[in-house]
Amino acid sequence: MSNIYETDIVIIGAGPVGLFSIFECGMMNMKCHVIDTLDFIGGQCNALYPEKPIYDIAGFPSISAKDLIENLEKQAEPYKPVYHLGQQVVSINKEDETTWVAETSKGNKIKCKAIIIAAGCGAFGPNKPPIEGIEVYEKSGTINYLVNKKDEFKGKNVVIAGGGDSAVDWALILSDIAEKLYVVHRRPKFRCAPENSDKLHALAKENKLELIIPYQLHDVKGSNGKLEYVSVKNFDNEIKDLKADYLLPFYGLSMELGPIANWGLGIDNKNISVDPSNMTTNEEGIYAVGDINTYSGKLKLIVCGFSEAAMAAHNAYNRVYPDKAYHFEYSTTKGVKT
Amino acid sequence: MSNIYETDIVIIGAGPVGLFSIFECGMMNMKCHVIDTLDFIGGQCNALYPEKPIYDIAGFPSISAKDLIENLEKQAEPYKPVYHLGQQVVSINKEDETTWVAETSKGNKIKCKAIIIAAGCGAFGPNKPPIEGIEVYEKSGTINYLVNKKDEFKGKNVVIAGGGDSAVDWALILSDIAEKLYVVHRRPKFRCAPENSDKLHALAKENKLELIIPYQLHDVKGSNGKLEYVSVKNFDNEIKDLKADYLLPFYGLSMELGPIANWGLGIDNKNISVDPSNMTTNEEGIYAVGDINTYSGKLKLIVCGFSEAAMAAHNAYNRVYPDKAYHFEYSTTKGVKT
Repeated sequence: MSNIYETDIVIIGAGPVGLFSIFECGMMNMKCHVIDTLDFIGGQCNALYPEKPIYDIAGFPSISAKDLIENLEKQAEPYKPVYHLGQQVVSINKEDETTWVAETSKGNKIKCKAIIIAAGCGAFGPNKPPIEGIEVYEKSGTINYLVNKKDEFKGKNVVIAGGGDSAVDWALILSDIAEKLYVVHRRPKFRCAPENSDKLHALAKENKLELIIPYQLHDVKGSNGKLEYVSVKNFDNEIKDLKADYLLPFYGLSMELGPIANWGLGIDNKNISVDPSNMTTNEEGIYAVGDINTYSGKLKLIVCGFSEAAMAAHNAYNRVYPDKAYHFEYSTTKGVKT
Repeated sequence: MSNIYETDIVIIGAGPVGLFSIFECGMMNMKCHVIDTLDFIGGQCNALYPEKPIYDIAGFPSISAKDLIENLEKQAEPYKPVYHLGQQVVSINKEDETTWVAETSKGNKIKCKAIIIAAGCGAFGPNKPPIEGIEVYEKSGTINYLVNKKDEFKGKNVVIAGGGDSAVDWALILSDIAEKLYVVHRRPKFRCAPENSDKLHALAKENKLELIIPYQLHDVKGSNGKLEYVSVKNFDNEIKDLKADYLLPFYGLSMELGPIANWGLGIDNKNISVDPSNMTTNEEGIYAVGDINTYSGKLKLIVCGFSEAAMAAHNAYNRVYPDKAYHFEYSTTKGVKT
């Protein structure tokens, strides 16, 4: 699985701006490897709103997020980018004055001349309940933020926490599978399709599941890393212990900088500070483009990220080809690699 | 013909970046009037290379310049821009602290809160022969750089100067109309379709026109503002006077800043200096975006111009709505006006 690679540029993040960075680097004869925590390219565009129309991409009166990503992938394709998906860059290290090494959570190491961070709002992660010591249960898989195989829950006691679509959808599905199913929510009303809320209450009446409302997660108990009880509390501070083999908190996704915060880059309110004239960070050879960067006048718009990608690529050229002056040609004159 | 208008924003230049500026202003509820010297929108894209594919517009693996302009026009359309084409902005004046007035060569006056200059490489204009004192004949129309009505030349003595397509095309057409037609070119070979060059030489043999080669324009003579003689010179400094009612120099088009150079804006090597964080010039309320501006790290790329248009619009909002804070919303959430 784990390999050592060598390339010109490592791009962190395969969202729209990361993808356009491949193209801009490619136009200047620089090869790229692209890393993303998600299993697919497109970042938020594909993860959160693939079908939604975007209206403010120049040249498209309207385009769905999914189509925009498809187009950008196609535009980058002639430059043969290498994608490393479903893995996070956990560290970057300077090997020498001109070489950086990015290492991913799957143990891949990629040597390069420059790194372009196009990580959007950071990596997606589940919102976790504020309970101390849950890591051990996350590790054993008895606290889980997504459902991989629903048969895992056959004959088990399961607690679902949350009141949104994911919580309710999984409650409807698992009510048939789990031995005992609790749904813990801090309010009587669920934020989901009214039809699903009706189904949920109907199942509760049939004793196919038990609604624990209005309650919040309070604590977890177990032994040998396995969950045994989920403790919940209401607004009168009354506590109940629910016997549980599994806890599934569905509190939505949020984004966080993750390991990037520890790379010694200048950070301003969760964004990476860059020089707006070339997108360089305080570390030579490290660039930040798109929603993750900040500078005076910064607008978090995809069109601005595209422009920043071009600027970063033009500056990185000097690192990849220190002895060549770049000869500017219009794309209409030069064409693209095919 | 001449009118007084009032709007939020005047955009100078209807090229790709000018058109996207309409959209960005529209998204922020600002109305635009757009002025261009050309008779059509699209700037260079439509004037110079409509059929050429462009490869470096983000989201388009390839798009013809003409299609890009069509898309941008459609994207701007919901915001009902008012176009003033075939006229140049000859002056801009501050009416008061918050109002600018732009006046065009057709005498239209447009009051606005802000002006966005998106004039590319400047206005297109004919290359003129380096002869002193020709302005008086330009004014009387006896020296002309384009042909409006060919019947004007019926029974007249006409001198065409130049050796490219325009010169030869008009020579072929006017040979039937003019009383006497001279074609002055400094080289024996014409830079035009071989077929047209053959036709030209055939007409010369039939005495339908006279080729004056290799000669260059040397001087013009006339009285009361009317042209009478065109004086030409060969490489041996021999001079001939050609009796002429009209001179039509076809030396190609070039671009120049034009009146913009006289507006007191900070100019750096024929570009307008701007603050890269908001595209403001040294005059409050005047912005410059796209190929016409310059700042540290500037790249003359259309994608960068698009980003600059967004930045200018966001800053101009504070002038148009000084009492409102702009509430940022993604276009996917907000949608567009339809």
